[in-house]
Amino acid sequence: MTDFDKFFKPESIVLLGASSDPRKWGWQILSNILHGGFKGRVYPINPVRDEILGYKVYKSVADVPEAPDLAIIVVPTTSIVTAVRDCTARGIKAAVVITAGFAEIGEKGVSLQEEMVRVAREGGLRLIGPNCFGIVSPASRLYAQMPPIYPPLGSIAVVSQSGNVGSTIGRRAMAINFGLSRLISTGNEADLHVEDFLVDLGRDSQTKVVLSYIEGFKDGRAFFRAAKEVSRHKPIVMIKVGETEAGASAARSHTASLSGSPRVFDGICRQAGVIRAGNIRELMNIGYGFLTNPLPRGKRVGIVTLGGGWGVLAADACARLGLEVVRLSDEVIRELDKLLPGWWSKSNPVDMVGGSIISDNILRVVEVLAKYDQIDSVISLGMPLPDLSNLPRLVMGEDKENGRKQILDHYRKVFGRVGELKVKYGKPIVVAADIFMPRNFVEELDIMCAVTDVGQVFYNQPHEAATVVNALAAYAEYTRRR
Amino acid sequence: MTDFDKFFKPESIVLLGASSDPRKWGWQILSNILHGGFKGRVYPINPVRDEILGYKVYKSVADVPEAPDLAIIVVPTTSIVTAVRDCTARGIKAAVVITAGFAEIGEKGVSLQEEMVRVAREGGLRLIGPNCFGIVSPASRLYAQMPPIYPPLGSIAVVSQSGNVGSTIGRRAMAINFGLSRLISTGNEADLHVEDFLVDLGRDSQTKVVLSYIEGFKDGRAFFRAAKEVSRHKPIVMIKVGETEAGASAARSHTASLSGSPRVFDGICRQAGVIRAGNIRELMNIGYGFLTNPLPRGKRVGIVTLGGGWGVLAADACARLGLEVVRLSDEVIRELDKLLPGWWSKSNPVDMVGGSIISDNILRVVEVLAKYDQIDSVISLGMPLPDLSNLPRLVMGEDKENGRKQILDHYRKVFGRVGELKVKYGKPIVVAADIFMPRNFVEELDIMCAVTDVGQVFYNQPHEAATVVNALAAYAEYTRRR
Repeated sequence: MTDFDKFFKPESIVLLGASSDPRKWGWQILSNILHGGFKGRVYPINPVRDEILGYKVYKSVADVPEAPDLAIIVVPTTSIVTAVRDCTARGIKAAVVITAGFAEIGEKGVSLQEEMVRVAREGGLRLIGPNCFGIVSPASRLYAQMPPIYPPLGSIAVVSQSGNVGSTIGRRAMAINFGLSRLISTGNEADLHVEDFLVDLGRDSQTKVVLSYIEGFKDGRAFFRAAKEVSRHKPIVMIKVGETEAGASAARSHTASLSGSPRVFDGICRQAGVIRAGNIRELMNIGYGFLTNPLPRGKRVGIVTLGGGWGVLAADACARLGLEVVRLSDEVIRELDKLLPGWWSKSNPVDMVGGSIISDNILRVVEVLAKYDQIDSVISLGMPLPDLSNLPRLVMGEDKENGRKQILDHYRKVFGRVGELKVKYGKPIVVAADIFMPRNFVEELDIMCAVTDVGQVFYNQPHEAATVVNALAAYAEYTRRR
Repeated sequence: MTDFDKFFKPESIVLLGASSDPRKWGWQILSNILHGGFKGRVYPINPVRDEILGYKVYKSVADVPEAPDLAIIVVPTTSIVTAVRDCTARGIKAAVVITAGFAEIGEKGVSLQEEMVRVAREGGLRLIGPNCFGIVSPASRLYAQMPPIYPPLGSIAVVSQSGNVGSTIGRRAMAINFGLSRLISTGNEADLHVEDFLVDLGRDSQTKVVLSYIEGFKDGRAFFRAAKEVSRHKPIVMIKVGETEAGASAARSHTASLSGSPRVFDGICRQAGVIRAGNIRELMNIGYGFLTNPLPRGKRVGIVTLGGGWGVLAADACARLGLEVVRLSDEVIRELDKLLPGWWSKSNPVDMVGGSIISDNILRVVEVLAKYDQIDSVISLGMPLPDLSNLPRLVMGEDKENGRKQILDHYRKVFGRVGELKVKYGKPIVVAADIFMPRNFVEELDIMCAVTDVGQVFYNQPHEAATVVNALAAYAEYTRRR
């Protein structure tokens, strides 16, 4: 068992600071370990309780009947050094320190943090944290974190210097049925740094894409080397904050991070192939995009839209990002003429002007564009709608259950065909669609989940599709250059 | 009855091009008029049918027993001039032309469009469209548009040169229970232009905010005059597309719009007080922000957050937009010390470091910031969570109905208090919160609806809150300058 296996595939866990008070982290984390269904052995430590949440409680780490693989530590700062020493004395090699109040609060906290790391290193104990939310490893059904979220197993790893950004990602991924391979809140990174986790995730076969939120690097060179190595095989998508004075100052008081120069970070991204995202939603959108699309050969985009406005928004967004909205050849226009009403746009974006929105015509147009040599990626704004004749009745609440099933089946089928076209032509097909149904009928989330069932996703706005295509194209270009 | 009353408060409608085929717009629009619950008289015209969707059908406009207030026209382009002539002959003064295939398809379409307008004007008939999605006027329960969406009555008016962008807004507003005063798809604007609707909306007492999607102006000066007049009393928030060559070209083939120079439009916005939005979500976010907040006195922002990462993201976003993340005085820090654990950030953003997230402490911190003279707007990242001890059980699906009610009541109460603080201190309090529950328990949409019940909204990401505060501050500054 490597150090990282002890963190992410432990067979036994000790929780220092277990509490019987549901308002305390020491209760919430135990509750999440329990409800998450962790299959290994769990040893809560509490000096005065015999039992919490059905677990037998131990007075001290020394009393636990084995040397556990992993310690989770939530004791107050005043007891932290003792707790770490108890762990090393019991032969524990991996610990997650949730407790806050270290380097992020200034000088006094810095020395306490240094003392804790010194004691841990002397005893051969590696640390995640302090000042973190904990870790999630769905393959082991390990949900050792503060918020009650239990994302299923998937291929996205999340490494976040912010616990709440990490849990936002976990919660939202879970909501649309998208799984995670790991969720790591790294906190102050007193011992293990973001780059250590990157290296490990580079080797982890379950992980296909790494999403990361970063406030600053403890060791910029080590991060650069790690990122460059990992991005040979898997994309790293990253939010880097603290690029304004206000943001940098907030990052300092949050995780004691020094944000560093935005220009240096730009250079790291360019040379190490890190893809940047501006916000949490964009980060996740790009991550899903990598998981569900082949890489494009270049920056040339074909757009098809069920309505003009979305097409214009997408064209503007593509052009701003540096993607090329290609001019269609006469040959392609002739092929599209066969599918579309006489008054279609005859140009890219291909505007279907609300015509034949029920039939699968838009999928045929997508295929014409995907087949075309001059196009590297297709953006489809809209998908065939379900049979409209029923819709008003369904929207008004009649025959709801049947209608719900009919619509979800429809979208599963339609997106399944999108997936087939991606494979057939080896090109990304990125869908943004407005299939948000009125809430008394069927929810957007239901449709999103139906679509993730068949390994696909869609976005809610035209510019989001453009951003995803741009990220795919940037990463493809980076890997070609190497 | 003014011309605009005939469009938006008609007592009778004639539909030219009514169809019994659910795949045709002539069926879909009739179906929406029916299911929307329009209370006036409806006269579908079709030469071969006697009845459609329960309505008595007439052979021609001449056969209709009265001169209807409004005509909706969906006949093919080949019959359009005859249809318009039939309307003028019957004394009709207002018509919405849904039919596409005019100026947007080139020269031939341009002359047809001109001919149609000439005939209409000779007969005193005003036109919306052609090439539009129709209109919605909830006060009259008039849903004369293509997509099956029925937003309730509210205070947001939407004027869109794109039908599908307009319907996206309608659909999403409806999903979270936010009403519209009007939804107008203006299409090619052969007769009535966006500025004509603006002037009317400026007078409409139901409308408090105008949202608009624009590809280009037929008459830039008239738009400028109209916008300047309306923005004295109500904010206009606008997406202007076609600012790249690819986007401008797409706009031309969509609604025959000439996008014009981005610099000229920037000048119009500055001088006429138009607030710009970059995408549909931002447009709606800002619109909700105006409806649910007083205007701030300046650009100084106080941020409170349940977790550090969201705080850093918000601080970065505020600083980039030119908002000032103010330094807290010693006095305010002392007041906050009383509420927060010892290790809190002692700075702005006020980071509650996951402490007391269940109690209403965050609302107390919001109040301390709102009370403070040096702060013009408060951004609250997070709200008190419902009792966490139940959450894991609820999340896992036990006692779901009770839990659902408990959580919705909780958020109604919490956001009700936010509303009271806004009134008490006369300052915007903009909330972004991650209260997205796992889908097998209770949906984000449910919570959003519960919150709109009490006249409040919240956003999903920290930078969205910053964007809203910035829009409020910009409009406030504009109105002060005038």
